[in-house]
Amino acid sequence: MFTGIIEETGTIESMKKAGHAMALTIKCSKILEDVHLGDSIAVNGICLTVTDFTKNQFTVDVMPETVKATSLNDLTKGSKVNLERAMAANGRFGGHFVSGHVDGTAEITRIEEKSNAVYYDLKMDPSLTKTLVLKGSITVDGVSLTIFGLTEDTVTISLIPHTISETIFSEKTIGSKVNIECDMIGKYMYRFLHKANENKTQQTITKAFLSENGF
Amino acid sequence: MFTGIIEETGTIESMKKAGHAMALTIKCSKILEDVHLGDSIAVNGICLTVTDFTKNQFTVDVMPETVKATSLNDLTKGSKVNLERAMAANGRFGGHFVSGHVDGTAEITRIEEKSNAVYYDLKMDPSLTKTLVLKGSITVDGVSLTIFGLTEDTVTISLIPHTISETIFSEKTIGSKVNIECDMIGKYMYRFLHKANENKTQQTITKAFLSENGF
Amino acid sequence: MFTGIIEETGTIESMKKAGHAMALTIKCSKILEDVHLGDSIAVNGICLTVTDFTKNQFTVDVMPETVKATSLNDLTKGSKVNLERAMAANGRFGGHFVSGHVDGTAEITRIEEKSNAVYYDLKMDPSLTKTLVLKGSITVDGVSLTIFGLTEDTVTISLIPHTISETIFSEKTIGSKVNIECDMIGKYMYRFLHKANENKTQQTITKAFLSENGF
Repeated sequence: MFTGIIEETGTIESMKKAGHAMALTIKCSKILEDVHLGDSIAVNGICLTVTDFTKNQFTVDVMPETVKATSLNDLTKGSKVNLERAMAANGRFGGHFVSGHVDGTAEITRIEEKSNAVYYDLKMDPSLTKTLVLKGSITVDGVSLTIFGLTEDTVTISLIPHTISETIFSEKTIGSKVNIECDMIGKYMYRFLHKANENKTQQTITKAFLSENGF
Repeated sequence: MFTGIIEETGTIESMKKAGHAMALTIKCSKILEDVHLGDSIAVNGICLTVTDFTKNQFTVDVMPETVKATSLNDLTKGSKVNLERAMAANGRFGGHFVSGHVDGTAEITRIEEKSNAVYYDLKMDPSLTKTLVLKGSITVDGVSLTIFGLTEDTVTISLIPHTISETIFSEKTIGSKVNIECDMIGKYMYRFLHKANENKTQQTITKAFLSENGF
Repeated sequence: MFTGIIEETGTIESMKKAGHAMALTIKCSKILEDVHLGDSIAVNGICLTVTDFTKNQFTVDVMPETVKATSLNDLTKGSKVNLERAMAANGRFGGHFVSGHVDGTAEITRIEEKSNAVYYDLKMDPSLTKTLVLKGSITVDGVSLTIFGLTEDTVTISLIPHTISETIFSEKTIGSKVNIECDMIGKYMYRFLHKANENKTQQTITKAFLSENGF
């Protein structure tokens, strides 16, 4: 469980591919202060398990399923990544639960500076936007953000300079691919409401329905 | 409160049945380093209270309700079990919010190795799957996992080698029974949404209703 | 933050009422080992602040609001109370997240022994049950428990002998009043969901809506 507040940006030291799977080694320091084998760390928003570590780097195994569903394949040795440790039990009960299970990717189609904020348009598949809500939360490469604009296939987010400088957003350009996790609560609501509707016989206001109700 | 990251596998030393209740004694070491009477320990995902302990074993009382709702009855002297201490106040939620209150059991119907991951299909009652969501979280024998596939009665999970070697999954075969805890957040959402629907007065389109709406 | 694992039962030494407020002095020992002025201690699940203490007793001030919302008024000199210190930084969440902010009270309407467990029915206002979920958590007089049964106005819990002997449950009878705190995660989700519903535009059946549906 994470909160989408990036603690440090790390650097890819090596990427060993074995078939569709991958072992990643990442250089960093702060988040290794209290690390243990088996700990969960979000790398660009992807929850991965520490299988090896030293004082200034750690290694994770990445399943084919995860490689396929995320932008990991776009990374190379030297790429910067957003890092966050799992939520501290005595940490703040933040406003947004991030599981680190990436739902899909999006492409940056607009970057626009307006006074002290930078606006980004993220183009993504409607299967992702359908569970989102204006002013709701979304996680982009592990960063918890507010949805300022929402259409069928595009989400608009806005970042303050602090967030940009503390994350890899500073390296993003038009066309960059980013990992998207939709808000957990939205996904549950979408599934339960639709299941409830599916269970209901398809009741549309038909002539028969109105006549049954005495019209 | 747990998080679904197994700390150690223990071994059943003895199982004393009294009617439908049970007293379990379990051999282990790591998780007894800071144990106290009354501590909560998750045994295959079941939150149980320590009633006695020594340096290398502990005893717990199991209520009939818990024996009935879990796979404890399938265990025998020598069986391996997953163990996790309650979340440390300075610990981290490496998995998700796990209460240790098991919702039911499932049967393993498929085990398939694909590159560095092993996929398992878990067949369970639809009353359990109804509160789950794709890419959501589920606890299986106390292990926090991601839902990669979800149908009316089957959940697909995928484990990396590290998780398999650190838990009793390595001993599982087709037909094995496992304890299932559904994600707390999903259970709450499901209940609240359905209560909201129940509370809505059964709004039928009556003449009065249509005339109120200007027809 | 507490976790609902009772550390010690204390005894009311004195109750000084001033208008609707109250100053309580409680005899105990274990939980005073590391006490400081201003510390938080849960008394029957109510978070109260230590204003004075000696080696074997401590005093707390109780606000009128708290007296009104809890069962404190039912206590007298000599009454037993459940005591828990605030979660230590190196402690463990053996129960669940308990804030010590009591939501209301309930009345015990059934006590039934079954094998090694005792079942209690707690009758309470539906405003409390609405945020609860089966197999979820609830705090009763400061004790973290699992919800085994749930109806519109009644919660069923089940206690093992260890918990009964370590708390004031052994003194409870049919008709006893107990303090109830609903699970924080449930309350959080309930509020979040109802806020989302409020934001939805109020969709009424208009002429346009009917014509869109072919009338």
